[in-house]
Amino acid sequence: MKDVEPEEMNRRLWLYDKIREVVRRYGFQIVEPTTIENLKTLEAKSGPAIRKEIYWFKDKSGRSLGLRFDLTVGIARMIANRYDLPEPIKFATIGGNWRYDEPQFGRYRYFAQWDIEIFGSESPAADAEVISVGADILGNVGLRDFVIRISNRRLTESYLKQVGIRSQIQLEQSLRIIDKIRKEPLDQLRGELKAIKIKEKAINDILSYIALNGPPAKVLDDLSDYDFREENAKKGLNELRILAGELESFGNVSSCVYDLSIVRGIGYYDGIVFEAFDKGGDDVGSIFGGGRYDKLCRIYGKRDLPATGVAGGIERLMISLERANLFPKMRIGAKVFVASVQEGIRSEAIRLAQTLRSSGVSAEVDLKGRNLSKQLEYANSARIPYVIVLGPKEIQTQSVRIKSMETRGEIEASFTELATKLRTLD
Amino acid sequence: MKDVEPEEMNRRLWLYDKIREVVRRYGFQIVEPTTIENLKTLEAKSGPAIRKEIYWFKDKSGRSLGLRFDLTVGIARMIANRYDLPEPIKFATIGGNWRYDEPQFGRYRYFAQWDIEIFGSESPAADAEVISVGADILGNVGLRDFVIRISNRRLTESYLKQVGIRSQIQLEQSLRIIDKIRKEPLDQLRGELKAIKIKEKAINDILSYIALNGPPAKVLDDLSDYDFREENAKKGLNELRILAGELESFGNVSSCVYDLSIVRGIGYYDGIVFEAFDKGGDDVGSIFGGGRYDKLCRIYGKRDLPATGVAGGIERLMISLERANLFPKMRIGAKVFVASVQEGIRSEAIRLAQTLRSSGVSAEVDLKGRNLSKQLEYANSARIPYVIVLGPKEIQTQSVRIKSMETRGEIEASFTELATKLRTLD
Repeated sequence: MKDVEPEEMNRRLWLYDKIREVVRRYGFQIVEPTTIENLKTLEAKSGPAIRKEIYWFKDKSGRSLGLRFDLTVGIARMIANRYDLPEPIKFATIGGNWRYDEPQFGRYRYFAQWDIEIFGSESPAADAEVISVGADILGNVGLRDFVIRISNRRLTESYLKQVGIRSQIQLEQSLRIIDKIRKEPLDQLRGELKAIKIKEKAINDILSYIALNGPPAKVLDDLSDYDFREENAKKGLNELRILAGELESFGNVSSCVYDLSIVRGIGYYDGIVFEAFDKGGDDVGSIFGGGRYDKLCRIYGKRDLPATGVAGGIERLMISLERANLFPKMRIGAKVFVASVQEGIRSEAIRLAQTLRSSGVSAEVDLKGRNLSKQLEYANSARIPYVIVLGPKEIQTQSVRIKSMETRGEIEASFTELATKLRTLD
Repeated sequence: MKDVEPEEMNRRLWLYDKIREVVRRYGFQIVEPTTIENLKTLEAKSGPAIRKEIYWFKDKSGRSLGLRFDLTVGIARMIANRYDLPEPIKFATIGGNWRYDEPQFGRYRYFAQWDIEIFGSESPAADAEVISVGADILGNVGLRDFVIRISNRRLTESYLKQVGIRSQIQLEQSLRIIDKIRKEPLDQLRGELKAIKIKEKAINDILSYIALNGPPAKVLDDLSDYDFREENAKKGLNELRILAGELESFGNVSSCVYDLSIVRGIGYYDGIVFEAFDKGGDDVGSIFGGGRYDKLCRIYGKRDLPATGVAGGIERLMISLERANLFPKMRIGAKVFVASVQEGIRSEAIRLAQTLRSSGVSAEVDLKGRNLSKQLEYANSARIPYVIVLGPKEIQTQSVRIKSMETRGEIEASFTELATKLRTLD
């Protein structure tokens, strides 16, 4: 696992602020679930197979514990037995997670996610809101060229059954194969579907179905040619119809397409699902993803609680922002170095630096008892943009020159106006 | 371990911002060391005994790993082999740590700390700067009534040897006993020193020495009566003399006292040491603490690197701030609920909410298809302070009333001035 160095840290902190700004606008409450969970809680969602992918251990009293691998599980556990909170419960969080898998590009063993969840609403309006928050987060950090691909797991599962997939195992296998559509050529998908014994005709039907994509109205029109027989399929289709109108109201429909190949690999999704991609770099995979999981809360609590949410990887988003050059220029370290021409002046330099600091100007002074030229050398290699040299004359006149290390230009400033002048400099 | 609920989360985020504001003013660079370290790295400082106090485990490839138990170790490891960074290297971090011990008041198995470190300066000016950052952090969150108790481990260890403590084991035992001075009565300390076979005369000398405290000038004066014979003692005393002047320059001397009972339990400190206490609640223990550890970096790297730093517990600081009622009032959730009188209006309500959100006003709309009275009930129980009811008339006139849920008062506002008016409301 890796340390976060100063430049990356500045960018992370900027990004976290931008994300929190958006989630707060929508009235989400920010929380953080515990980092260590009982292993049972982590297994509840995906079964004991998850042990292979996470960090888990027995503590000194023999309890099996694990480091959280996502934020949804913790938040669902937090609210599952809270009957006191008015619904919908809207929680958001940003935090680190741990997975024990092979690190890949944009994927690390310790990674951070932003995550928002709405509990207590079955309405596609809630799905539209979480999609809208996702779109606004990307917009708030300056990303414009992205697409949100939306589908409905309920509809897709029903359709798969309708074309002849009978067993739960075969259903899950097919979903996992469909999920690879953006990573593998179609022929390979076809081969994999064949390998799990799906008939030629059904494979053709499935491939035509998952090829449907485009603006919501267009895909809904395509789907009207389908003869869905299961109630669940009709329900799923209706959810997509309502969602299209809601997305229109939220004003984010232009970045949304319906794409029936979107299934989300993980088992717990059961309604509307979606993934967003950065058009400038979809090699990092989806930039956020989510959907509806109405059955998860029952696992942790005593009741069903409809739920929908979205999560995005911080590291992937940072890759997109770096590529598009969207991070603002941020200073690392101080803005000004207050040098002293001789040892006797150093305490005056500290005093002046303290005054600047209390006016909100970041300042450094010599902490190594160096001579003037060594002090300037340090300011230069630490890339501090401005320097003030303090000597007896400056103390007598209560006035200094602010020297730009880049342009070598100088500005005169009295002690009293110094902080104000420094604040206006770039 | 516990989840962080919305109110606490808001306070934490506010506190983190206040801390970062101060460390940036001093030109510190913010970083974050990895959460999981090799067990060897964690043991390097304190020996294998640390295993009993931390979470550690073997990963799937058999490596022994542990969750970080403080931030100093990680930062020291990060810089130990960096020869490219100009010195002094000034790093700061805020982050969670894990310790496997019995939870006590203000002490948890997962706890957060702020931490700043200066590497590369032997000068007491660096110690004065970290003390000053600590004082400014407390000041920046509104705490005024605190005291920073300062001593010098080098001086104290030399003095203990001078009065007859010969072995390293006895030295460490005595330091651990002295460290309990604020928790145990003097008689008990006397008994414990006797139990490790320190002679009556030496115990008297030690107890008089650690009883010295007061303003730096007063304690330095008291110490001038002592006949320190070891070079190390003279060096330590001289560091305290220089530090007093530096604290004066930094303008923080008024909150500092010299207190020779301060030793810091942990093994790696070797020069100036200090602990700060909230006078309004020192039952939580020290509110920050730190000191000089010139030998630690060599353990992780190839060189000696003088170092001094300070760390404070976030949870303890929060207890102090809560007691002194210093947290500002912060809203949890949205500022305004946009209700709709009937289903056909709901999309207009969403549009209006979206406009408010993009103007930076946090807004919520109905996501459950509720009737008007249920919507108002929700806004009330979610403690959203303002409500707008949107009906056909409001849409026609492009104007609404902002209703305060607390005072029941109403303000008229056109759609165009709505965001501005809402922003000015409390």
